[in-house]
Amino acid sequence: MLVDGERLDQLLRENFEIIQNDDVFSFSTDALLLGEFTKVRHKDQVMDLCTGNGIIPVLLAHKTRAKIQGVEIQPALVDMANRTIQHNHLENQIEIQQMDLKDVAKKYKPSTFDLVTVNPPYFKENQKIQHQKEAHKIARHEIYCTLDDVVKASKHLLKQGGKLVMVHRADRLMDVLSSFREHRIEPKRLKMVYSTPNKPEAITILVEGRNAGQAGLKIEQPFYIYDTDGEYSKEMKAVYYG
Amino acid sequence: MLVDGERLDQLLRENFEIIQNDDVFSFSTDALLLGEFTKVRHKDQVMDLCTGNGIIPVLLAHKTRAKIQGVEIQPALVDMANRTIQHNHLENQIEIQQMDLKDVAKKYKPSTFDLVTVNPPYFKENQKIQHQKEAHKIARHEIYCTLDDVVKASKHLLKQGGKLVMVHRADRLMDVLSSFREHRIEPKRLKMVYSTPNKPEAITILVEGRNAGQAGLKIEQPFYIYDTDGEYSKEMKAVYYG
Repeated sequence: MLVDGERLDQLLRENFEIIQNDDVFSFSTDALLLGEFTKVRHKDQVMDLCTGNGIIPVLLAHKTRAKIQGVEIQPALVDMANRTIQHNHLENQIEIQQMDLKDVAKKYKPSTFDLVTVNPPYFKENQKIQHQKEAHKIARHEIYCTLDDVVKASKHLLKQGGKLVMVHRADRLMDVLSSFREHRIEPKRLKMVYSTPNKPEAITILVEGRNAGQAGLKIEQPFYIYDTDGEYSKEMKAVYYG
Repeated sequence: MLVDGERLDQLLRENFEIIQNDDVFSFSTDALLLGEFTKVRHKDQVMDLCTGNGIIPVLLAHKTRAKIQGVEIQPALVDMANRTIQHNHLENQIEIQQMDLKDVAKKYKPSTFDLVTVNPPYFKENQKIQHQKEAHKIARHEIYCTLDDVVKASKHLLKQGGKLVMVHRADRLMDVLSSFREHRIEPKRLKMVYSTPNKPEAITILVEGRNAGQAGLKIEQPFYIYDTDGEYSKEMKAVYYG
């Protein structure tokens, strides 16, 4: 089942295993945080954009019986995701499409999803990418899709009142909120993630927006990955171990 | 010095006293938080909009030798502010103008201030205001000035690179950030304020924007007013007592 360079990582709380390959793609803490932050109902139609090795669909499959679709542009990652899905017997729940998310309007009818999740490329295309492997560049940098492409694709997919849940870098909060509002996806929940309580600033943001929703944002309590001693925080341990 | 209904409140850390009147205006915790959050240099030209009884200029006078101006529309509050200034011997540092901030372009040259602070009215005009006293309505609701009026006035006053520092309600974060960006005052520092670590969401936000600044926002560690036992937090005690 595994090919060269791959390993099988445990998702302990979820009791699933996921295929990873550091040379190509391995999920980050941010994916776990996105899975944790996302609220999903059993009746939802769910789409995960920029799905990578399928980590978000697999995490969400632990929370819901809903059908989950994923879109990924890199064939090697789609292949990894599909083997992970088979390995965990999730073929009836999760389906991954190899495609460019800029083409979602060609493939999917408008206003058909209740929930779109996304852990998009974080960095602008021109930010120092010269020494990275091609697959990493594509996953991390806005090469094949920009933030605006992601929000635009989500807008097409979401029903009225449907939710877009995104993880992004804290220093791009303004860009994320602006892009949501521009596409009339109103930010409704926001959570800041800090490495530790000692660090001067947040590193990551989690945002939930509602398609064509009313204004009114709840800023939730922050999330700390480590405590002041450098140990995983209680809340981070709960994400890992349940 | 005091008139009917007024009292003299201590600002312990600052060693100043401020005239308050619950029938007309008394400063809130938010004003203390704004004073705490604001960075001011001795060489700055400082303006406080919606200055009320002058609480922000008085708090900032503890931090800087800079000249501080204030603008307030309600004559009764300007009178209170002026008596507070005299009482604390701050006449040479603080000057309050009774005027509508929508007229700042008539009175002040453009691009002349390094720092504008503001604790604006928080509520939209149509939100349940019928049972409040007139002076409270004006201080709390967007009757004489909207958020956009405040940011527009600040834009006129600020030098290139000058800073606008605002406190507002957490649920209006989107409006605040949008208005800043619309007037090309780029949000650079953001701090969320929570009542306690147990409450589900933030109540207040503190934002610093830079006139014509580059994108790139630092989300600072949150501020808690009370700890989980309902006592003032260590950081809040520091604001009160130093």
